Amino acid sequence: MGASLERIITLMTDFGTKDGYVGAMKGVILGINPQCTLVDITHEIPPQGVFEGAFVLGNAYRSFPPGSIHLAVVDPEVGTQREALVVETEGYYLVGPDNGLFTWIYRGEEIKQVVGIRNRDFFPKPISQTFHGRDIFAPVAAHLSLGREPEKFGVRLDRWSEIDVPEPMVTDKGFMGEVIHIDRFGNLITNVPRRLLEPLTGQGSLQIHIKGRRISGLKTAYAEAREGELMAIFDSFDLLEISVMGDSAREALRAAKGDRVELFSP
Amino acid sequence: MGASLERIITLMTDFGTKDGYVGAMKGVILGINPQCTLVDITHEIPPQGVFEGAFVLGNAYRSFPPGSIHLAVVDPEVGTQREALVVETEGYYLVGPDNGLFTWIYRGEEIKQVVGIRNRDFFPKPISQTFHGRDIFAPVAAHLSLGREPEKFGVRLDRWSEIDVPEPMVTDKGFMGEVIHIDRFGNLITNVPRRLLEPLTGQGSLQIHIKGRRISGLKTAYAEAREGELMAIFDSFDLLEISVMGDSAREALRAAKGDRVELFSP
Amino acid sequence: MGASLERIITLMTDFGTKDGYVGAMKGVILGINPQCTLVDITHEIPPQGVFEGAFVLGNAYRSFPPGSIHLAVVDPEVGTQREALVVETEGYYLVGPDNGLFTWIYRGEEIKQVVGIRNRDFFPKPISQTFHGRDIFAPVAAHLSLGREPEKFGVRLDRWSEIDVPEPMVTDKGFMGEVIHIDRFGNLITNVPRRLLEPLTGQGSLQIHIKGRRISGLKTAYAEAREGELMAIFDSFDLLEISVMGDSAREALRAAKGDRVELFSP
Repeated sequence: MGASLERIITLMTDFGTKDGYVGAMKGVILGINPQCTLVDITHEIPPQGVFEGAFVLGNAYRSFPPGSIHLAVVDPEVGTQREALVVETEGYYLVGPDNGLFTWIYRGEEIKQVVGIRNRDFFPKPISQTFHGRDIFAPVAAHLSLGREPEKFGVRLDRWSEIDVPEPMVTDKGFMGEVIHIDRFGNLITNVPRRLLEPLTGQGSLQIHIKGRRISGLKTAYAEAREGELMAIFDSFDLLEISVMGDSAREALRAAKGDRVELFSP
Repeated sequence: MGASLERIITLMTDFGTKDGYVGAMKGVILGINPQCTLVDITHEIPPQGVFEGAFVLGNAYRSFPPGSIHLAVVDPEVGTQREALVVETEGYYLVGPDNGLFTWIYRGEEIKQVVGIRNRDFFPKPISQTFHGRDIFAPVAAHLSLGREPEKFGVRLDRWSEIDVPEPMVTDKGFMGEVIHIDRFGNLITNVPRRLLEPLTGQGSLQIHIKGRRISGLKTAYAEAREGELMAIFDSFDLLEISVMGDSAREALRAAKGDRVELFSP
Repeated sequence: MGASLERIITLMTDFGTKDGYVGAMKGVILGINPQCTLVDITHEIPPQGVFEGAFVLGNAYRSFPPGSIHLAVVDPEVGTQREALVVETEGYYLVGPDNGLFTWIYRGEEIKQVVGIRNRDFFPKPISQTFHGRDIFAPVAAHLSLGREPEKFGVRLDRWSEIDVPEPMVTDKGFMGEVIHIDRFGNLITNVPRRLLEPLTGQGSLQIHIKGRRISGLKTAYAEAREGELMAIFDSFDLLEISVMGDSAREALRAAKGDRVELFSP
């Protein structure tokens, strides 16, 4: 990927938006590369929510053009010996702590190299041991956006961390999945991908059980359901989603992350 | 309006900021036009709150320079046959679902053309039926920002949707309005415009009744009131606003949208 | 500082993000200087929270490159005779009401000039008396970003406002400080700077009392503590911070701003 001063840097953190922490990171980046374009993915990842961050980033990253830099900081181990990474994939650069935040991206992209950040030339001195987002990750992302090669930041690693992603299980009758994310609308996003269900949906007879409720078949648009109807649909990232038309499925079902969803054709 | 790669695209949605949905839309836009300037109006419109979105956008849009593109997605009918629109007014371009989100702008601007989006050349294939924000509206806004003419996206329509906006009513004594928005500070914004009241305010004797409380006359600045005083003032969009100095009028009056406000000069 | 059309303007307000007020300010700025780079510090300052705003801005401002313009609007006295300011320091420009919002910056920067905004040539007519953010501060910041000299906006002042910042007190045994900010993670930020404690920390025997709990010594990284352990550390702005590893110190201690923290070496 060639260099461009106008490269996009996305930011995702668990810093919230009330304390100015994200502003400080952006100030550091713009001080190094005033031409880059900064885009927030979200800063509302729950504190230390590595799984949640990995999921949200895993959905959003591929909407960005090739060459974009995804800077992600959800970092419960800040200040320890955990690695700080620069990753180059076929399409993107990734910058963040080595704790599995990039798990979904690793699965979706060919990894070209993973570099452990060692080179302190790019950091201020001294660095804070509580805010690597500002003092390590922001300057590294900014220098990357100037066209610096990933290997300039440290040493190539041959191991890196992933988080455990619950996979749907095969059952006697079909599959068992679970709710892995609940979005702003109260939609329940499961870990069941479209490709798994397609063999079952041909006949239109897919049965879904969740929280003691039954859903027959899949909708292809929210508005095929009646107001207040419980429904299943593939979400915009091709995962099975349980929704209530015009309402919050989380509230209607008193659902939570980890709730099980059973799928079968009778 | 001439084309400029640096055109502004504003974004307003009910997507919230925790799920990365807005980030995905911005990624799509920047992949098509890396030079455009993206500005968030808000993403905190209540889920499916078309009225609320229309009001907020109706206030904010005119602060942007001519030629700006306002991209708005509050879309309860996503995936149905509701039209998706590109609108050209004397000053702006509008992109979003045809459900009345642009009602206040239609009333404030001369409409040059309303185009129903039909041309699928600008979309990814297949498109999601749950996230037209990413798959239809974002790419259309981005291509508009590159100077594409509105008519290239589909067919001209001669009908489009508006929402019902409650209008102040004439009463025996004066006017009856209502609270149509409550802002972050707890200020109660009513549907009563300055021009309606000006004939009544010349004598300084305007009387306002709301929730069993009386207010005499209008302030011209918050600080003319004492701490904790209930007051009326014209807001920055020239609508009558009921406030409590240094406090939340919503809490002080236990007020809600739809509450009535009576206005008369005795 | 030389002029550059691409100058950074940061924004900090108590406007929240749901009403479109910040969007309107950005529209005004981009209408005057489409080339400037806008960065949000935060808009979640509590309504009329001048102290909170001053603290957050006082931490974030110095991460931005020299020449950046910091536009801050937390303005309980909007519409009164309080001054509206343009301040030039050795490194930055500041634009906002004269109520102490810039107190920490005044203490950290050499002040070159403080100008009271008088020149109405830069404002729309008429201006709103409830939204100077849009009608005064935004256009002034935008014109500054175009290279306009501060003195063009009004008259030099020789007095300006600061807020009272509680200072740590010397006690028989050491120092008494207090909690002045609680961040998103529930970390308690105190008014005790690193330089004050360094003489006490040489022996590693620093004792900290807060809310009836005792902490011995300082950590240098969160992860030196066990899960759930109460700890003290210097935060990324070199202030003493009380934290609970992996949890919220606010909740664990039922702490609030103003809570006292005692420091001594036995």
